Amino acid sequence: MSTDTDADADESTSKCGASSSSNSSTDSSSSKCGGSSSTDDSSSKCGGSSSSSSSSSSKCGASSSDSDDESNEQEVGATIEDFDAEPGQLIAVGLGPGHPEGMTERAKTALLEAEHIVGYTTYIDLIPDEITEQADDIYDTPMCGEVSRTEESIDRTLAGNDVAIVGSGDPNVYALAGLALEILESKGATASMVDFEVVPGVPAAQSCGARLGAPLVNDTVSVSLSDHLVPMPEIESRLHSVASENFTITIYNPWSRKRRENFEKCCEILLTHRDEDTPVGIVHGAGREDEQVMITDLGELEDLGESEIIDMTTTIVVGTEDTYVWDDRMVTPRGYETKYDY
Amino acid sequence: MSTDTDADADESTSKCGASSSSNSSTDSSSSKCGGSSSTDDSSSKCGGSSSSSSSSSSKCGASSSDSDDESNEQEVGATIEDFDAEPGQLIAVGLGPGHPEGMTERAKTALLEAEHIVGYTTYIDLIPDEITEQADDIYDTPMCGEVSRTEESIDRTLAGNDVAIVGSGDPNVYALAGLALEILESKGATASMVDFEVVPGVPAAQSCGARLGAPLVNDTVSVSLSDHLVPMPEIESRLHSVASENFTITIYNPWSRKRRENFEKCCEILLTHRDEDTPVGIVHGAGREDEQVMITDLGELEDLGESEIIDMTTTIVVGTEDTYVWDDRMVTPRGYETKYDY
Repeated sequence: MSTDTDADADESTSKCGASSSSNSSTDSSSSKCGGSSSTDDSSSKCGGSSSSSSSSSSKCGASSSDSDDESNEQEVGATIEDFDAEPGQLIAVGLGPGHPEGMTERAKTALLEAEHIVGYTTYIDLIPDEITEQADDIYDTPMCGEVSRTEESIDRTLAGNDVAIVGSGDPNVYALAGLALEILESKGATASMVDFEVVPGVPAAQSCGARLGAPLVNDTVSVSLSDHLVPMPEIESRLHSVASENFTITIYNPWSRKRRENFEKCCEILLTHRDEDTPVGIVHGAGREDEQVMITDLGELEDLGESEIIDMTTTIVVGTEDTYVWDDRMVTPRGYETKYDY
Repeated sequence: MSTDTDADADESTSKCGASSSSNSSTDSSSSKCGGSSSTDDSSSKCGGSSSSSSSSSSKCGASSSDSDDESNEQEVGATIEDFDAEPGQLIAVGLGPGHPEGMTERAKTALLEAEHIVGYTTYIDLIPDEITEQADDIYDTPMCGEVSRTEESIDRTLAGNDVAIVGSGDPNVYALAGLALEILESKGATASMVDFEVVPGVPAAQSCGARLGAPLVNDTVSVSLSDHLVPMPEIESRLHSVASENFTITIYNPWSRKRRENFEKCCEILLTHRDEDTPVGIVHGAGREDEQVMITDLGELEDLGESEIIDMTTTIVVGTEDTYVWDDRMVTPRGYETKYDY
């Protein structure tokens, strides 16, 4: 699912705001947070704090999501040598679209079994109380990047806790599974050491597709317009390649105030290859109270960029040349040559 | 999820073999199956039987999956005018990878609430007894194509039953959601009339991706090598377009005895654009007792086509130029320019 790396694009003040709520009455010195055995009340409970060699770096080791300067060296805080305990298990859990009924049974079980649950505040809030109440500790941050949270979850695991790190959708889709493995490696740990497991969830493409009818059906592509990590020229090249073939294209992270031109460019590229009456489905805030679903056509899409329906929580599904709209639903035919008489 | 349209490629005798097990003691004349009020014991309970104008057509209206002759006109059996009842609800339910814990809460609820459950026998067998026992009727077929089953589910809905039609993975991914809408339309019904709903599930790309580590992560593509409905030249063109860009490519329906050359061609195309040491993940029978997971490289892939790990139940995930293998897992980096020191 789309990450929160661009959440800061909504221009709220960036504060670390990490919170850690414990359900057990352990005091901070015996807390299993990170490698820091000298945690006092003034330090953030982000695992990276005690070993950071750069005094000016944020204590929570946050990637500077608001900053355009991505060349800041981020140092791994604690490494495997800082831990004495037998590592716990780290599980990356996909929550699906965002309401409890969209979670798989395995996701629920994994969360119920976890001692610590880590995630972006918005996603933690999606988890039913009956599950979060079972955890020893919940660590959520509203603004610090996923890098710091993922590192925090790993430190807690290396410290001996069974940890679940959550995200919406699926952990493999523009999300934290790969990052977790990368950070494990840089800490000198291994995935096997923490019995790393990925619990898949329903990605946005499918949960939004379901709200639109049957738009996907055949060969599909997911493209993210976030150029936070991938240069826009590469994204444009990918769009050209798939728009010229008969793929249904699901667009993640379509728009933010800072990246309007990415969205405009995307619309332009799509129109280069596809008719302006190609059906396009737009789902905003899928599974949330402010969910909106709209079916429009490609020619209208760019103007909608400035409307409230398109923002960072929006998923856009662009139909193929065969997709049509029927009874307020997008339909992409399977291609059965069988003809039906009526 | 991949459909059973090519299941016949395993060369078993094609028999209709429809079965309908009722949990209630209604007799056949009061059965709400399809539009047939004259159902006697000798007719199949497939809804299309009574109105079929072709005496030689299969009573279950099966698409001839074994046949290369796809120009057979398939006639819609019952149409909206054949039904007097207030339609029930039709829900297309994605079961996910195939074990009960991979189902979402919503999927379970939908199945528990359904009066009739329809699906391919293999998928029906995946549903826990506690759920199937609640249904009034279960209709499953081992060999008849999804066209006939989907039509059967619609007829039962139009006859007044609340029906769930199931498939593995997600109903929008090479599956039945679009087909259901097409058939509804050809019967003169509407999606709204049956309050058509799609309950998404975890697609094979993500459930297999989870078994492989973190292979997906960035922009991804799903391509099916089944040319049952899409001509192979089109599939080749799509493969060329995405293999030349940095997409992770998930291949569905990679191989069958009748379509070896599709798989070989696919490997050839991939190697045209990607290094032979590109990591490739292979998951066979995900979620089943005979599940096998292998990580290999692109140069080895073609030879594996003749091994038992690659068949119709296999999903193949081809890494990008950035994907690497670490600790027996595929890792596709998110692309954070943040460097980690160790």
